[in-house]
Amino acid sequence: MTDRKSQQKFECACIIGVGLIGSSMALAMRHRSLARKIIGVDRDENVLARAEKLGVIDQSETSLEKGAAGADLIILSTPVGAMADVCEMLSDAAPDGALIIDVGSVKGVVAKAGAALPERLHFVPSHPVAGTEQSGPEAGFATLFENRWCILTPLARKDEAYKSAINKAEELWTGVGALVEVMDAEHHDLALAVTSHLPHLIAFTLVGAADDVESVAHGEVIKYSAGGFRDFTRIAASDPIMWRDVFLSNKEAVLEVLGRFSEELAVMQRAIRWGDGKALEDAFARGRALRRAIVDAGQETEKPNFGRDKKPEN
Amino acid sequence: MTDRKSQQKFECACIIGVGLIGSSMALAMRHRSLARKIIGVDRDENVLARAEKLGVIDQSETSLEKGAAGADLIILSTPVGAMADVCEMLSDAAPDGALIIDVGSVKGVVAKAGAALPERLHFVPSHPVAGTEQSGPEAGFATLFENRWCILTPLARKDEAYKSAINKAEELWTGVGALVEVMDAEHHDLALAVTSHLPHLIAFTLVGAADDVESVAHGEVIKYSAGGFRDFTRIAASDPIMWRDVFLSNKEAVLEVLGRFSEELAVMQRAIRWGDGKALEDAFARGRALRRAIVDAGQETEKPNFGRDKKPEN
Repeated sequence: MTDRKSQQKFECACIIGVGLIGSSMALAMRHRSLARKIIGVDRDENVLARAEKLGVIDQSETSLEKGAAGADLIILSTPVGAMADVCEMLSDAAPDGALIIDVGSVKGVVAKAGAALPERLHFVPSHPVAGTEQSGPEAGFATLFENRWCILTPLARKDEAYKSAINKAEELWTGVGALVEVMDAEHHDLALAVTSHLPHLIAFTLVGAADDVESVAHGEVIKYSAGGFRDFTRIAASDPIMWRDVFLSNKEAVLEVLGRFSEELAVMQRAIRWGDGKALEDAFARGRALRRAIVDAGQETEKPNFGRDKKPEN
Repeated sequence: MTDRKSQQKFECACIIGVGLIGSSMALAMRHRSLARKIIGVDRDENVLARAEKLGVIDQSETSLEKGAAGADLIILSTPVGAMADVCEMLSDAAPDGALIIDVGSVKGVVAKAGAALPERLHFVPSHPVAGTEQSGPEAGFATLFENRWCILTPLARKDEAYKSAINKAEELWTGVGALVEVMDAEHHDLALAVTSHLPHLIAFTLVGAADDVESVAHGEVIKYSAGGFRDFTRIAASDPIMWRDVFLSNKEAVLEVLGRFSEELAVMQRAIRWGDGKALEDAFARGRALRRAIVDAGQETEKPNFGRDKKPEN
């Protein structure tokens, strides 16, 4: 664990939604000493009790108003669909000058909710491209953001206070180990539709379709999953509510890239039907280079099978 | 590594095609002392030299006839498209009573090629449902088959010599650590279309489609791949020739399950277009249970992100 100390510290961070990302943020900030105190806010008291017991947060609040009252940093880590309501509550409840960030996978709708906040509050939409298929405070860990990209999509505000807030947000993210990129929300939503939303949709769909071929038993799908299917089940095991909200909130971009995928799939289907081996081979040959590039960029392990199988020295 | 000794030993095993699976078979047999001598046959002299240097095989032959001449066990580990030709050569070259197995991912076409062999040879089509995205003799390892299923699809022969060959094949596979299942070739090809062939096709297709959205840069696809896309690149990095042959050889079953997938995808597309959150949530909720079942069946790791990310104790 790097022992880097950030120059920016917060007095009191309020984390709204203490799930995988919220608790990872809390732990990462704690390990880097980025906040003097961390308050967790959640509608679910049980989640709060578990998070407090795990040492993820210092204090629990079911009331967003109370939790946010003394915070100079507010982190929205609820599903995307809840963020407009949370922003509305914060417009009164959050103290002057508070930095507000979110961690949502869609930025257009979040930026719109953030733009409705009063100017005394500084909302910098953020998306750390990191996560696992697990949920809840137990799933959080301090190094989740290390060497992962975090995309900021700042609002269209040019005042100095807001510029300073963008800098603070950037320092916070680099403080927890992330690499920061800034772009507009619309481009984010298209790029992430490609690298995250469509892959999740495809994985969810494949898992459903596989289990519906009635002449192949459920048990067979499980037994022979090491042939490739199991890879898809990881992201298909992600939180259903979170992903429902992503697709509802990024409809246009997802439908656009889904259209591209369906076209490509039709081309593959025809190549198989016609026995066009050359077309298949050429299409398949692209995979290795792209994976190599992802490994070289530090975004993936180079171990075969993701390193999950035991492979002794021969 | 288990120190189990099989009751069945072979004098001389001839492995035709010394890639990932062929060399893993050689290493697994060596570690379990299942063959006194292992001859590697490959068209590529460079592959043979590397395999011999790595200690995977005892002897190299570019001539299939010479390699097979003294073998009591012949293992076909070429791409599926080459197996009919190899079988034709073996019908003269293989010695009386030899047990022949293959390791191909499609069984219908292989069984057909095997059925054309003279009765003095005993061909038991086999498919170990195991592998990695890597290729070549360097990629092989002795424990690849441990706790993975191997499916046998015996020919329609009822003679005692053939029954005994099926037993020998089963002992060989359990000897290298696999779990054995017997079924007919047609059912195999449908079940594996679901759990292996379709997932590979989808992954290859997604990788191609992602790189073709011209308003999203290649570099962005790489940087933000941790959002889910990178999972697909593993199997999309598999050997293009091997997979070309799989799709050409299992056309009907692949097109059948692809049809199911496309239907399901259209349902998802409509749910997104109509904003039907309930339908999405219900569909997505299936993923966790199926993954849990695969983990419980010992076919997958339960570590988040396949265990590939570092996760220290918090």
